[in-house]
Amino acid sequence: MAELTRRRLLGGGAAALGVVGLGAAGIGRATTTRDEKSRIVAIHGNHQAGIETEPQAFAAFVALDLRPGTDRRDLVGVLKVWAQDAHRLTTGVAGLGDSEPELAEDPARLTVTVGFGPGVFGPGVFAPDDAAKLRPEWLRPLPAFGIDRLEDRWNGGDLLLQVCADDPVTVAHAVRTLTRTVRSQVSVRWVQRGFRNAVGTLPEGTTMRNLMGQVDGTVNPAPHSPEFDSRVWNPGSPLWLAGGSSLVFRRIRMELDTWEELDRPARELTVGRTLSNGAPLTGTAERDDPDLDAVDRNGIPVIPPESHMARARPRNADEQFLRRGYNYDDVDGTGLLFASYQADVDRQFVPVQQRLADHDALNRWITPIGSAVFAIPPGFGVDGYPGETLLEG
Amino acid sequence: MAELTRRRLLGGGAAALGVVGLGAAGIGRATTTRDEKSRIVAIHGNHQAGIETEPQAFAAFVALDLRPGTDRRDLVGVLKVWAQDAHRLTTGVAGLGDSEPELAEDPARLTVTVGFGPGVFGPGVFAPDDAAKLRPEWLRPLPAFGIDRLEDRWNGGDLLLQVCADDPVTVAHAVRTLTRTVRSQVSVRWVQRGFRNAVGTLPEGTTMRNLMGQVDGTVNPAPHSPEFDSRVWNPGSPLWLAGGSSLVFRRIRMELDTWEELDRPARELTVGRTLSNGAPLTGTAERDDPDLDAVDRNGIPVIPPESHMARARPRNADEQFLRRGYNYDDVDGTGLLFASYQADVDRQFVPVQQRLADHDALNRWITPIGSAVFAIPPGFGVDGYPGETLLEG
Repeated sequence: MAELTRRRLLGGGAAALGVVGLGAAGIGRATTTRDEKSRIVAIHGNHQAGIETEPQAFAAFVALDLRPGTDRRDLVGVLKVWAQDAHRLTTGVAGLGDSEPELAEDPARLTVTVGFGPGVFGPGVFAPDDAAKLRPEWLRPLPAFGIDRLEDRWNGGDLLLQVCADDPVTVAHAVRTLTRTVRSQVSVRWVQRGFRNAVGTLPEGTTMRNLMGQVDGTVNPAPHSPEFDSRVWNPGSPLWLAGGSSLVFRRIRMELDTWEELDRPARELTVGRTLSNGAPLTGTAERDDPDLDAVDRNGIPVIPPESHMARARPRNADEQFLRRGYNYDDVDGTGLLFASYQADVDRQFVPVQQRLADHDALNRWITPIGSAVFAIPPGFGVDGYPGETLLEG
Repeated sequence: MAELTRRRLLGGGAAALGVVGLGAAGIGRATTTRDEKSRIVAIHGNHQAGIETEPQAFAAFVALDLRPGTDRRDLVGVLKVWAQDAHRLTTGVAGLGDSEPELAEDPARLTVTVGFGPGVFGPGVFAPDDAAKLRPEWLRPLPAFGIDRLEDRWNGGDLLLQVCADDPVTVAHAVRTLTRTVRSQVSVRWVQRGFRNAVGTLPEGTTMRNLMGQVDGTVNPAPHSPEFDSRVWNPGSPLWLAGGSSLVFRRIRMELDTWEELDRPARELTVGRTLSNGAPLTGTAERDDPDLDAVDRNGIPVIPPESHMARARPRNADEQFLRRGYNYDDVDGTGLLFASYQADVDRQFVPVQQRLADHDALNRWITPIGSAVFAIPPGFGVDGYPGETLLEG
């Protein structure tokens, strides 16, 4: 993954730098300072940026619908505009026709990740036979789970733009720029904005806490590891998706009023981890392996089998995926923008979610109110665009 | 103002440190590192924190209403809880009954500023005769301006909590903690959340840009200057407000779609300043004095008299005040949370706003959709609370 984070520049040395393949801006330019480089994430490569990228502090997830009559050529046009503007904005250059070019000066590790909803395979873009061959089987709404209280205004979408950066002004400006230039082909369906801790407030690599106070995202494959490659990147099924992924996006409302009525031990039993550092109740450190067989002197499991952690825990290697969510706190309430990336939704995500929906002590205090699934096309080069392997195929 | 910013610690030297009067946490403790100190703004002193404080990156403005039947004793109870929790949270200590104490660990320059709306002077709290004597005359809804399209959901409020910090998680947690403990006395009327550039993305002291791309807030009195003291802090009219201030809060929607139809010169003529660095059209640097009499070779004013800057420009010293606003970008649209602080709303703010409402080239692209006025009580000490000079008087 051609990514320039401060960590890699300071710690990764020459090996990390060798991976980088920036286009017009970046490492090749003698005038680029280290500080500038730490603000640029290269977006060209085998995979789209914004997934293996160390999570930025802010995100906007933007779902868009193809306007009636939009055909394949129009869609390709939209994707090419996005590819071009994403390259410009992520390197600190104003977008094409950018009305506020000064707001583009600091990319702040901006990434733009494009996703395809089921609607991309509609009759305007593909003949039905082709669509059936090309559409990943899992690219459809998730099964209805008993805990869901989905609201249509947070559901679905033909296209997704995931816009992440360490500065909220950068995110706002990028969303504006990327959506306004394509207004005649697509309409914005929903925008969901989230945040993590601001840069510099916590040591780098700290697992985020959600707004229930829980350490959230401990069990993630390490970036640039074989596990990451095999769990997150699609191996080529369907072929055009090789190097791509999938995004399951869920808006999960937290019922904080009742959650906060629980005392601390009850909350820890619900989650299966301590609140202080996220350690499993049988351990002392966040990444300790939980002992699900441990019992106390009365023979009662230390980690309740109904706890969130016990239910969510992968039953096999397939059930591992990357979680890269954000907090939300807005006029609609407080919660989590759950975002998981996996090679195959049905094989990896659905079994875990089904187990949680069937029985998870945490369910009383969380309510999924929005849901969407997107295919994430593989990466692209300087002259390419996201989805070219599908649309030129 | 007893405030510990990185700038003052590094640049202000011993004089700045001498002002500090922290309680349980802070500068007196040998274990406190410079970095920790730069994250703590002391809240006790002659003035409330959060006004002269260098603007933090994130803000939530929370309006609350007294529940029917709430009397003066209840109100004092609420204010004492806030004083206590604000002191704890701003020094990195969990609030009383804090359900997520780990989210309190990083104060991130948190400040909590309390304001009083007209409702505080209602019959539940004050006898009518006392209220008439104690209520500042300007503490009422602003005059109706022709440009206003106010929506009740963004208007008014009996009490205000202004919560600012450099980390959005800190803001979310502080709002949650401060509102949940007082639920039986007050109800949340609205919450409006805003942002500026994240810390570290721009040089310290850079004037913010709003989401129209304009440099916004150039003409502000310098903190800790005689001008600031005389324009922002109330001299004691009424007496209980000495050292306090007032807040005019306006939710101003930006009509970006039509604004972006203007070309760049037209936008600069509308504002009266360049977009590149905010210099007046007769100057080259942001803080250059504008020459409103300058004409081009055709005799046409270089800065149009209808431009926002020409209309907003103070006609006399009274018309100066502090602007400390935030951008918003949420499900309701994009705009500015305008926040001005002045000793006297009627004398300082209203004439400027009336002039702008009557005629301002920018009016076509901005729409005030929310409005509220609050008295900001003076500062308080370790054993005090905001408003004690009013409520113990």
